[in-house]
Amino acid sequence: MSKPSIGFVGLGAMGFGMATHLVKQGYPVHGFDVFPASIERFKAAGGIPASTLRESAEGKNYYVVMVASAPQAQSVLFGDDGIVQYLPQNAVLMLCSTVSASYAQSVVTELQNRGRGDILFVDSPVSGGAKRAADGTLSIMAGATEEALQAARDILQEMSDEKKLYLVPGGVGAGSNMKMVHQVLAAIHICGASEAMGFAAHLGLDARATAEKIFASDAWTWMHENRFPRMVEEDWTPGVSALTIILKDAGIITSSARQHRFPTPLCSTAEQAYLAALVHGWGPKDDSAMVRQYYAKPLSEVSPSADPEAATELVLELMRGVNLVAAAEAVAFARYLKVDLAQFHGLVTQAAGASKIFIKQGLEMIEGRIGDKAPAGSPSVDEAAAKLEAVVQKARDLHCPLHLGNAALNVLFQAQRHGSGGQSSTSVIRVYG
Amino acid sequence: MSKPSIGFVGLGAMGFGMATHLVKQGYPVHGFDVFPASIERFKAAGGIPASTLRESAEGKNYYVVMVASAPQAQSVLFGDDGIVQYLPQNAVLMLCSTVSASYAQSVVTELQNRGRGDILFVDSPVSGGAKRAADGTLSIMAGATEEALQAARDILQEMSDEKKLYLVPGGVGAGSNMKMVHQVLAAIHICGASEAMGFAAHLGLDARATAEKIFASDAWTWMHENRFPRMVEEDWTPGVSALTIILKDAGIITSSARQHRFPTPLCSTAEQAYLAALVHGWGPKDDSAMVRQYYAKPLSEVSPSADPEAATELVLELMRGVNLVAAAEAVAFARYLKVDLAQFHGLVTQAAGASKIFIKQGLEMIEGRIGDKAPAGSPSVDEAAAKLEAVVQKARDLHCPLHLGNAALNVLFQAQRHGSGGQSSTSVIRVYG
Repeated sequence: MSKPSIGFVGLGAMGFGMATHLVKQGYPVHGFDVFPASIERFKAAGGIPASTLRESAEGKNYYVVMVASAPQAQSVLFGDDGIVQYLPQNAVLMLCSTVSASYAQSVVTELQNRGRGDILFVDSPVSGGAKRAADGTLSIMAGATEEALQAARDILQEMSDEKKLYLVPGGVGAGSNMKMVHQVLAAIHICGASEAMGFAAHLGLDARATAEKIFASDAWTWMHENRFPRMVEEDWTPGVSALTIILKDAGIITSSARQHRFPTPLCSTAEQAYLAALVHGWGPKDDSAMVRQYYAKPLSEVSPSADPEAATELVLELMRGVNLVAAAEAVAFARYLKVDLAQFHGLVTQAAGASKIFIKQGLEMIEGRIGDKAPAGSPSVDEAAAKLEAVVQKARDLHCPLHLGNAALNVLFQAQRHGSGGQSSTSVIRVYG
Repeated sequence: MSKPSIGFVGLGAMGFGMATHLVKQGYPVHGFDVFPASIERFKAAGGIPASTLRESAEGKNYYVVMVASAPQAQSVLFGDDGIVQYLPQNAVLMLCSTVSASYAQSVVTELQNRGRGDILFVDSPVSGGAKRAADGTLSIMAGATEEALQAARDILQEMSDEKKLYLVPGGVGAGSNMKMVHQVLAAIHICGASEAMGFAAHLGLDARATAEKIFASDAWTWMHENRFPRMVEEDWTPGVSALTIILKDAGIITSSARQHRFPTPLCSTAEQAYLAALVHGWGPKDDSAMVRQYYAKPLSEVSPSADPEAATELVLELMRGVNLVAAAEAVAFARYLKVDLAQFHGLVTQAAGASKIFIKQGLEMIEGRIGDKAPAGSPSVDEAAAKLEAVVQKARDLHCPLHLGNAALNVLFQAQRHGSGGQSSTSVIRVYG
């Protein structure tokens, strides 16, 4: 049986990989992009070029939107040449861009208002980066009606890892909410990777040796391992993952949090650090260039530390403290949004938001094993605060900014002020209400 | 009766004004500084130059230390050529530098350890800036034994405004604590002035017109009025009040807060913004240059706003929200440190940490007129959060960093999460425990 034709718009870093992977799997993919050069490149890779949005949509029973933002999606879907007017009856429309849940839900309303309630719309953001996009091993979080999910399932499965297609309960918006709470971790950990390495540089630590120790420790984050090579090589232009992308995602989180009046002190702190870098012109560069906001010179130009072992331990403690509060913030916000927490944990564990701390302590938070119910021997909030306090004081002595470290410490202090000091460090989640 | 000789060390921006004012009042002042040029300048202004610390101290019954930091004070007092070994019996030693309470207390211990318990030591930090130093109208916060306070009183009164010499109950350390909690407001408001004007620039507002409206409104802060002229003129080098000075003061606050495990989210946020600017080389410049961390071009280069009235209101709302939480943070920390709150309020009202919000809402917090006891018609936490939320969203849309605005909003959200949403906005202080 021949594979169905697929319309595709948005042939950027992610979209190009996804579309060409579908081509490799034998689908006729009709790709469009606002940049003609991207269409040419897609053609050279075996894709079928579409010269207009209309051409990409007419007669296509499956359509993937992978543009960069909600405003772009709105234009592609409903603009003057928007695809909705051209898609055939009962077409399956997969919005893979990262957008807010409220935007995804607004698409359903607008489809109905335009008399296109027949379209099977799927809210299906992705995660995993350009390489996994090209390999067809993304994580995809899909929310839709049962009918739409079943209709889209095969195509989504083609683009995702065998075990990483998540059919998220809750309908349209649920996929975007799942992506969003995942990005709470991503947004914090990306900034956290730069903060840790900037701090390491102020401490006079060799970047590669320090990173190796981080990777082998419970301070590990997926983002640190992923960003570190570009950070140390200063491989920032063009950005593999531009600062403006994670800034956009952070904006979705904090805007949604504001709508719900939910505090996200760590994610807000990361967002502000990104915005400050933007003012200095770093927007188009790779987000691993954030390290320059912490240390003004290349990481290779450090004055060697007198006691690298103790200094490395401070870097690990910084990450442990930040990752702990990041896990609390993500789990608390996910719970507040009624996200399926078991699915959330499984997804994060296999995706870019993962940290060793989230995998272990995040699960304890999800399962309510905090306070008196924490596993025996768990460190306390007091202990976590004391360790992070020493880190923050050292950074201060070195005149090293420590945006996340300070914000995390203030959250731990709030936990102490509210009487959780002697309880397990995972009890910090109580600060989030 | 001829006036007594005074020894004086530290002839910087503040110290020079204080020492020359004493000269004008008829005191023989023997001044020393590590920079010979400063001693020459002092001599030209009628002072008596001392070529060594010893010369400045021998035979002087009164001695004023106005160096920049605790490490400098330590060296001046107890170093190889330290003055303590040269001061006469029962000399009055006034430490006017801004230091931590614990450092001030350590001086008492070290004097005793060195057999110089006879010295009447006064912990007497000052506030008010270089002009008021030169005019002898500083605010001075003096903590010491009753005997030492009485012995130092006349000299301290010469340097301070008639109504601004505060004899702070609690002995040595109490003066520094009073100064420190005052600086919570100063550190936030200095950053807040730049944040407000940077936001105004992103909004396309004329800087001078906006500043005039701020000065005439309940969003007024002393710092905004004081820093604005230098900010708009870009009169930053040399810094009248270098970024490194307020950074040092912020460091005293956050280090002390960490010792007490007391959360200071706003002050920490300001400190981190200062540190980030330091990384970019702004340390020696005037702290009003912080505006460049929010808006990359001169304030004069803005694209005019379509609706300046509404935009100006957003700037005022930003300042109201930040100043409210700043007041809560300062009052809560002062209360925690058992600072005399009535005196604190009176002092701040007349000093550089003043804001219209602190004067009114800060007093309500101090007097416990929060929650159900708030004055009729007070806005609620919910209302304050909603207004600041609109500001934060607008800044986000404009890609304008809003470090303090975001941090303040997260504190308000925490107040809401802890059940204070419907209560008076001053109830936000409850977040601090």
